[in-house]
Amino acid sequence: VNAEIVAVGSELLTPFHQDTNSLFLSERLASIGISVIYKTIAGDDRRLLTAAVRTALARADILILTGGLGPTQDDMTRECVAEALGRQVQSDPELITELYKRFAARRMKVPENNARQAEVIEGAEVLRNPRGSAPGQFLEVEVGGQPRYILLLPGPPWEMEPLFDAEGLPRLIAHAPRRHIATAMVKLAMVPESAADERAAKIYKRFPGVQTTILASAGEVRFYLRAQAPTQAEAEDAVDQLSALLEEEFAGEVFATGDETLEQIVGYYLQMREATVAVAESCTGGLLAERLTRVAGSSRYFVGGAVAYSNEMKTKFCEVPPMLIAEKGAVSREVAQAMAEGIREHCWATYGIGITGIAGPSGGTEEKPVGLVFIALADGTKTGIVERRFPGDRARIRHFATQQALEMLRRRLV
Amino acid sequence: VNAEIVAVGSELLTPFHQDTNSLFLSERLASIGISVIYKTIAGDDRRLLTAAVRTALARADILILTGGLGPTQDDMTRECVAEALGRQVQSDPELITELYKRFAARRMKVPENNARQAEVIEGAEVLRNPRGSAPGQFLEVEVGGQPRYILLLPGPPWEMEPLFDAEGLPRLIAHAPRRHIATAMVKLAMVPESAADERAAKIYKRFPGVQTTILASAGEVRFYLRAQAPTQAEAEDAVDQLSALLEEEFAGEVFATGDETLEQIVGYYLQMREATVAVAESCTGGLLAERLTRVAGSSRYFVGGAVAYSNEMKTKFCEVPPMLIAEKGAVSREVAQAMAEGIREHCWATYGIGITGIAGPSGGTEEKPVGLVFIALADGTKTGIVERRFPGDRARIRHFATQQALEMLRRRLV
Repeated sequence: VNAEIVAVGSELLTPFHQDTNSLFLSERLASIGISVIYKTIAGDDRRLLTAAVRTALARADILILTGGLGPTQDDMTRECVAEALGRQVQSDPELITELYKRFAARRMKVPENNARQAEVIEGAEVLRNPRGSAPGQFLEVEVGGQPRYILLLPGPPWEMEPLFDAEGLPRLIAHAPRRHIATAMVKLAMVPESAADERAAKIYKRFPGVQTTILASAGEVRFYLRAQAPTQAEAEDAVDQLSALLEEEFAGEVFATGDETLEQIVGYYLQMREATVAVAESCTGGLLAERLTRVAGSSRYFVGGAVAYSNEMKTKFCEVPPMLIAEKGAVSREVAQAMAEGIREHCWATYGIGITGIAGPSGGTEEKPVGLVFIALADGTKTGIVERRFPGDRARIRHFATQQALEMLRRRLV
Repeated sequence: VNAEIVAVGSELLTPFHQDTNSLFLSERLASIGISVIYKTIAGDDRRLLTAAVRTALARADILILTGGLGPTQDDMTRECVAEALGRQVQSDPELITELYKRFAARRMKVPENNARQAEVIEGAEVLRNPRGSAPGQFLEVEVGGQPRYILLLPGPPWEMEPLFDAEGLPRLIAHAPRRHIATAMVKLAMVPESAADERAAKIYKRFPGVQTTILASAGEVRFYLRAQAPTQAEAEDAVDQLSALLEEEFAGEVFATGDETLEQIVGYYLQMREATVAVAESCTGGLLAERLTRVAGSSRYFVGGAVAYSNEMKTKFCEVPPMLIAEKGAVSREVAQAMAEGIREHCWATYGIGITGIAGPSGGTEEKPVGLVFIALADGTKTGIVERRFPGDRARIRHFATQQALEMLRRRLV
């Protein structure tokens, strides 16, 4: 059983907007064994949208449309699906009554256009939308002798997502052949993608039934595992076994096997150890503090941070001796160490982190090129310092540096 | 003249990846008067991709395909376009020679698969790709008596974008009817979208020939203007007139009429005035410093920042009297002011900014609810303080607060 997702809206054909609903939908569909074979984006044009619906019905078992269910003249998903099927739309008396009640409660007249939202395609089931005034619709039809399932959903994600889960998914499950699918995620920090892939390949080739996807971003690699089997237990077993072997192979490098971010994991460990952290940043300009404090409740373990961009501030905020900067340069092993130790003492924290480097695009020299970053982690007894040369542009170098810092702290805490 | 963009790649049908090339392409196409009527995402499946090409050729004048030009068996865009057209692919001897030379220079054998990248659809023009080994291809064909233009481009954006600009765009311009199009952008900070829209509506209804799009994010509204006219001068005139009236209406609120971000604009002004800034952040946790230092060269005007999450750090980094915090609370007008003034003195900066608030999700009270933020700007003579109640989640509240701070500084500098 396969599906096509059609995102409706002229704004989705401009350079400014993008369909993101299909990411949510394809995740949910994958979880019940339905694969997405096409995604189409169509504008608010009656002829073109009707044609897109016809094309989709000819090539996919399930058609999910998002958007175009609002009250304006531009919202024509209902009419176009009806037209493609050779059916009519009809005003649903119950929906009309509800609409009048809702507006009456707010002492308002129903705007003429709004009645459009009560129009239902002949033969469609109405799916109540608790978060908005546009209900969804579900249809079972036959096209060329083949059964087809059509789902119309509103465009705004906060309406579409709960409506799909509550009303759409159960209807699709009822019509899709029962599949048993299990998934798992294994996340690593600061392992290069190619190295991670090579080390994982020899493990996952022993599990031909498990589909593995490797996803990489600056300083992070995720393995996404997915298995389909005759029983749920078998599917989960296959995924669990592979996941356990990957965790064994990457032992200390795995930071999470779920949705948690690296900064969340670091936060958990700090709380568990009743420890605190303070940071002193030069080239990352506050990004490390910002990532740590993205996590709700981080005030329990994040004490404070200094963005010491100038040499004077390195001295003022984290007591780096001016002589040391003069001697070794602001971007040096020694200054990173002094920043980490200085901010730790200055903030009375368990751990202190210091970052100094050259984020570019300018300011690099042959000896100290763009991308060179020193990261130090102090705990009062010893200070670990790493020197790294990160690739990419300013934003990527800054992200890499904070990722490295978080990973150093995580490993110290484990 | 209209176009369909087909993004090729099974990964683009998963929950983890999204086609972004079409945003770039639709912007470029709009600039030459070509509208995108459909976007399709298809996987690496010979039958399904060939069908998608046939469908696109039946409904659009121009077909642009991105991706699927690599050397692996999964890369089948060339074969599928050829099959849809009933043509063959042929090995291009020149491309083969180049391939051998390139590998010989690196003392490597050409892997068997790589020869696939030298395959050219019968009748296609080869478009040299300086950034990768997969060349683009361009074809003019007839489908059902209609002229069709087909462009095959590599998937990675850093290869696709320059190749499209250098080779694709000129070919499309040559075949598209000459249109005269002008565009402009007007950007405002901290004006609510609905208010901006209402004030702008009465102006832009006087320019029915100019298409206006309003784009909004947390604390930012952008008007995108686009006019098409018989001559370039007329198009530019219409856009310029409307843009000038919008700038007049929103006078002090317009921060840019181009691509510049608010933090870049603030940076320009600071440099122009030979001024510097230092920031003390509580609830924004370093985000303001991070935004200011995203800009290359910001070390010329950004002195330093303190992330003073705990009360002790507010005293230590920005000399906020502990008595004041005890009396007024950490989230208060007075503490924001003391932070701004304290960090300014501490860092010997021209301007000091202090932010304190409740980013949530917890920590709010009836008196001081989640979203309440105080932002202060000190310049040594007077300190301006605003109290705001921002909507949304933690990330949105933090972004709003930094946007407000940057906008306050911009207005002080103008």
